[in-house]
This record gives sequence, C-alpha cells and structure tokens, in this order.
Amino acid sequence: MVKQPASYPKINAERLWQRHMDLAAIGATAGGGVHRLALSDKDIEAHRLLLSWASARGFETEVDQIGNMFIRRAGADKGAAPAASGSHTDTQPFGGRFDGAFGVLAAFEALEAFEDAGIETRRPVEAIIWNNEEGARFMPGLSGSAVYTGALDLEEMLAVTDSDGVTMGACVERLHAALEGVGMRGLGQPLHGFVEAHIEQGTVLEEAGLQIGIVTDIQGNRRFEVEVTGEAAHSGTTPRRRRRDAFIAACDIATALRPVFEDEEDTARFTIGLFDVYPGAKSVVPGRVTFFIDFRHPSAKALKELGDQVARVAEANKGVCDVAVREFSSAAPEAFAPEIINKVTASAARRGFKAREMISCAGHDARFAGLIAPAGMVFIPCKDGISHNEKESAEPKDVAAGAQVISDVLLDMANS
Amino acid sequence: MVKQPASYPKINAERLWQRHMDLAAIGATAGGGVHRLALSDKDIEAHRLLLSWASARGFETEVDQIGNMFIRRAGADKGAAPAASGSHTDTQPFGGRFDGAFGVLAAFEALEAFEDAGIETRRPVEAIIWNNEEGARFMPGLSGSAVYTGALDLEEMLAVTDSDGVTMGACVERLHAALEGVGMRGLGQPLHGFVEAHIEQGTVLEEAGLQIGIVTDIQGNRRFEVEVTGEAAHSGTTPRRRRRDAFIAACDIATALRPVFEDEEDTARFTIGLFDVYPGAKSVVPGRVTFFIDFRHPSAKALKELGDQVARVAEANKGVCDVAVREFSSAAPEAFAPEIINKVTASAARRGFKAREMISCAGHDARFAGLIAPAGMVFIPCKDGISHNEKESAEPKDVAAGAQVISDVLLDMANS
Repeated sequence: MVKQPASYPKINAERLWQRHMDLAAIGATAGGGVHRLALSDKDIEAHRLLLSWASARGFETEVDQIGNMFIRRAGADKGAAPAASGSHTDTQPFGGRFDGAFGVLAAFEALEAFEDAGIETRRPVEAIIWNNEEGARFMPGLSGSAVYTGALDLEEMLAVTDSDGVTMGACVERLHAALEGVGMRGLGQPLHGFVEAHIEQGTVLEEAGLQIGIVTDIQGNRRFEVEVTGEAAHSGTTPRRRRRDAFIAACDIATALRPVFEDEEDTARFTIGLFDVYPGAKSVVPGRVTFFIDFRHPSAKALKELGDQVARVAEANKGVCDVAVREFSSAAPEAFAPEIINKVTASAARRGFKAREMISCAGHDARFAGLIAPAGMVFIPCKDGISHNEKESAEPKDVAAGAQVISDVLLDMANS
Repeated sequence: MVKQPASYPKINAERLWQRHMDLAAIGATAGGGVHRLALSDKDIEAHRLLLSWASARGFETEVDQIGNMFIRRAGADKGAAPAASGSHTDTQPFGGRFDGAFGVLAAFEALEAFEDAGIETRRPVEAIIWNNEEGARFMPGLSGSAVYTGALDLEEMLAVTDSDGVTMGACVERLHAALEGVGMRGLGQPLHGFVEAHIEQGTVLEEAGLQIGIVTDIQGNRRFEVEVTGEAAHSGTTPRRRRRDAFIAACDIATALRPVFEDEEDTARFTIGLFDVYPGAKSVVPGRVTFFIDFRHPSAKALKELGDQVARVAEANKGVCDVAVREFSSAAPEAFAPEIINKVTASAARRGFKAREMISCAGHDARFAGLIAPAGMVFIPCKDGISHNEKESAEPKDVAAGAQVISDVLLDMANS
C-alpha cells in the first residue's frame, strides 16, 4: 500500500464558490435559480465549461455512450481503477444552484487542490458528471449512472423521448459533437470507489447546527397505485344507502393507511400526492378514484412489512366499493460501504467539522455507483431544506467543508 | 265556480307512447338515448314537431323572449289565466328519452284528450315547453322558467355563451325564426296553476312498487367550496412532523363532516364530487386541496342547522393546515301548493293508481313556476332510478298513468 500523505491538501474555498457562481450563470433564472434541463443547450454549455477548466489544468476528459463525462487527474499507476466523485449538472425546471452542481464542483476542486499541492496519488482521481440525474426531461432520472453500471439498458434509454418527441440518443450525439477532442470510454469501466457530495434537501443538519452529514444509507421505496371503483350517481336524488361513493371509500382507505406508517422515530415517508376523483363534477357522486402512494424507508424489513399492508388495509376499508392495489415500482434500500463511511467520518473529525450519520431520503447517482464500487455520500445543509426550487441556497463555508471532505476521502481512496 | 265534469276524460295511452317515440327520434343516439342540447338544431326541430301537432289540432301557440313555448287550448273565459302543465325538450348530453319529454307530452296529451272528449273548460289549458332546463349548453339551467317568473334577468341570460362562444340570445332568435306564424307572449303572464309530470330520477317509487309520486316539496340546497392550504414538500426528504399536508387535512375534514349529515331517515344528501389536489404529483406532499360540497335537504331548518356546521367542522379538523369555507350558492326548499297536491292525490285515488307523497330531490321548472302560481309535480318511476343517461327508461303504463293524473288535475284547475 502507498504511504498515506503526511497532510491532506486544503481546498480553495474562494475558487470553489466562484466556480459555483460561474456554473450557475448558465441557465440562470430571474428568480435566482437555474433552469438547465438534461442535454439542453445550457446543459451542454455547462459540460463545455467543465471541459475548458479541465483542459486548462491538463486533466484528461472522456465521455461515454449515455453522455456521462469523466475528468481525470492521472495517478502513478496508470492502469489502476480511479477514485471517483461527482454528481450532475442538469437541474429540475426552475431549480437551484447547488443540487448536482455542488457534487461536480466539489470533485473538480479536489482534483485542482491535488494539482496545486503537487501530490502524486497512486490511482487516478476522477470528477464525474453523471448525465440526466433529474429525469425532468427524459424519464427515468439517474439514467446516466444506471446505464453506466448496467442497471438500465443503453438502447432503451437512448430511445426515450422528451415532451417534444426528441430522443435522448439524438441529444447525446449533440453532446458528443460539442465536446471536441474528448475521448470515448466504454460503459461499466471499473471505479475503485465513489463518493458524492450533495446538499441535504432536508433540515436534519440545519436544525442540529451541523456542517457534514455522513450518509450511511439511501432509503428504499415502494410505489402503489390504488383504484377504487364505485358507481357514479345523481347527488340530489340518490339516497346514502344506495350510493357506492368511491370518494368515501378512497378517503377511508387513505385515512386507515396513515397510522400504519406513523412510526415514533418519524423515519417512514408515506405520501399520497396524486388523488384523482372521477367524473369530478359538483353534482355527481364519484364513481371512481385513483390515488398513488409513495412510501420510502431506509429499512428493507420495514419496506416489506409496512408496504405489504397496503393491499390488506385497502381491502378492509373499501366499504361498498371495489378496490385494486398495484405496486408499480420499488427500489431496495442501499447501505453505503463502511470503508467510505469511515473515511468521511475520519475527515470530518480531523477537520473539526460538526457531523452526524444520517440517511439519504432522496435518490442519488451514488446508489447506482454502489453497484460496481464501494460508494458513499457527504451532505451539507441547505437553507430550510428547500430544493428543486429557485430559492435553493447553501452557505459558502458549508460548501467548502463538504468539498474538503470529498478531497480528503478521494486522497484516501486514491492511495489505497 | 263552474260545475265539475261528471267524468274525467281518459287519455290515449297508445298515442302518448307513439308521441314519445316520435320525439325521441329527434336527436336519437346509437345507445338508445337522446342528445338534444337546448336550442340546438335538434331542439328547434323538437319545438317544430310540437308546433305541427298543435296546429293539426287547432291549438294556438305562442313563444316568449327567452324561448319558452306555450300551446293553448282555449277555454270559455278567454281572459282567464290558464291552467298549465309542461316541462322541457332539451336533454343532457347523451341523455334519455323521458327526462323533460314526458312532462311536455303528458301536458299535450291532456289537451288532446280534452279535445277528443269535446270538453269545454272555463279557463284555457296550456302545455308549456320551458327553454333550457338542463343548463348543459347555457348555464344556469332552469333559465326559461326562471326568466319567465322574474327570478333571472332576461338580458343577462340572453348574453350567456355556450362553449363555442354562441350567445343564447342568438339561438333564441333562430328558434323564433323557425316557429313561423307563432305569436309572441310577454314574460310573466299569469298562470292559474302549474303541474309538471316528470320521471322520478330516483328509486323510491320503483322500490315500493308504486306508479305515482305526489310531490310535496322540492328540496333546497347549499353548496360550499372548501380550500385547504398547507405546504408542498419533497415526499422523500420531508419528515412527518415538518409536513403541512393539505391532502391529510382535507381528508380529515371530509371524514369529520360525514357523520354530521348521516340522518337515520336518509333524507340529507351530502356529496363531495369534486376534490382537486395540488400540485398533484406522485412525489410531492400536497400543498393545497380544493373540494366542493353539495348539500341538499327538503327542510329549511335542516339546511340551516346542518349546513352551518360545515365551517365549524372544517376549522376543527384542519390540523396544521389552513382552511377557508365559502358558500357559493343556495336555494331554499320549495313546498308545493296544497291545492295542487290535493288534486294529484284525488286523481290517483280515483284512478286506483298506487301512490305516495314524496319530495323532489332534483330541481325542476315547477320550482320557478311556483313563484307566480300554485304549483305541484307528479312523478312516475324510471328503471333503476337511472337518468341523464342513454339507458333512461320508463314503462308505457306508468307514462300513461302520469299523463292521466296531469289531465285530471288540469281539468280540475281549468274549471276552478
């Protein structure tokens, strides 16, 4: 094993913040946010900006068939799998300046800090821009990392169209054409390890006054569609005893489901966000209701045990109506690698950053990176937990702290 | 007072049924129903068919400024206010053959039966086609009778447009043009009394095996809009204790309202038919819900006491959200005139029709006719209570029984 460096280089907080502002200028909105959908002109421009920064530093850049971009600082062992970090440059419609961008720039800052310090690592170190994380333009999201790691089929994803009928494949070709002189990399090339920095998108760190979240798990989810069928009827003439009111049955089911998911620790995330009543007229007793359940939990056991109760509770509370429950998607919880968690913990302790272990409640590219390498994440606070919103905001000192941890962990990985 | 006739003429059941089939042919749908929106070409054709039947009998016909049509069989006292009956020829989109048509044809059959029997009545007897009862094309419905009786402004109603931007005024002009040789009548000309035949649109008569419903009241209504405001949030990252879920609050309010309106007699009609969740996305905790309450009851006291609880119950069950309740329309219950109720009761008894007193749960033109004259209604059963539907169906024997009662009551009124 290569000797650990006597000291970990310090990242340049001013440069890092300036890079955030420069990147946020591409697709900047009047409301102070960023509108930069995956593979749009603005997103391609963002990739070109990163490429220009990389070229100025002499870092090598590659791109793959699904449009992921890799910026590499070479190591002593040219053939070794790289220590990698990164996130994404695409945003939600009228999204914020930090979601994704922070993870990319923290990784790039680490490469620059190593360069500034003249450190030679054993392994190459890479900053990755995963393509189409948000899924706002091409469904599903996380498709760059999912295709790279084999979780999603390349051809299938390239055939996906946006709302204008444009295929993702056509847009990836445009990206390739815009990245002149960038070499191609095959999908699934090994990574030695992957660590992703991200704003928390919640308020755990902010409320506790902490700077660093040591992410131990990414929660899993199960999604259900519930269809309640009754009989539409005249609201003026139909007596209660003759009604088969689908709204009442759906309401009863939704209400009965709630306590099932009300854990004291407030860990389970149970949401009914879509609830459609048909025919939806003021004077008609509803004949049908369709609603969607989004259930998330970090524990596979809880996902199974609680999620399995949906159909039973629906059946028990359908009253005079009929009900059909369909599970339309699910994802297992992902425990991050102890070796990455330990490195994040050690860095935060050495640097004196107040930190705690926590789970990620949203999905991130690190979930898929974890399929081919030890993976982990570093969270920093964001104001009021607001994200996917122009108001998204993070403090320069927290952005710097997160990037510093990424730099430290990458150095550990690169020399192991 | 004119002497009562020794015997009441018998209506012609075969002719009456044939007239129903002839009228139903205008706007007939493939599904066995009728699509004849107010003042459409088909509805105008229906008016012309009635006019041709009236002319063949030598009955005089008039029309007014809102498009109501009056077919008159003269009485001995030319200046006396007429004894009137009728309903409407317009239908709901893809509606049935009996809703409205039955009331018009029962009234016309009475005129023909008097003619066949050679009876001279003291007062004129009229069959009325009220215009735009359904309100499916021009809102609100019941506007022909409402304008005639002064409950609705003529100019305001004529300015109402359909979904293509065509004014009701332009359509009424087309109706006038299509009714050649028909005289104009001023709005609000007195009626001596009004009785309307209609299918029940419920199952009270069918379930009890009765032929005639003696309608004593038309129920009143109060309509409320409830707006629940919480805060939209990420369904994956937002813990329960930080949520202000408008769906949960709206569900709790709807559930808490239900028992308030659950009377043992099953008289109150409480319906939530429209329930809109915003932003309405699978992964977003709802920030806002708007729903509508349609509450109907024959008792003014119950309308007041129960309806007044909506705001209180909403407030008590809003949880961490905000709620605003707005009453956006109401109509008082209408008790029909005892003198008409008595005449209906007497006819059914004399004829041996099994009958009972009941309320009308839907709105009808008789509500507005009651503003200027003693009014009442006669119901007959319709299959499974289905109405506003191509499947709407009634039995020839019940159609005949209802028309017979109308004929008897008109004769009583015409000679009083």
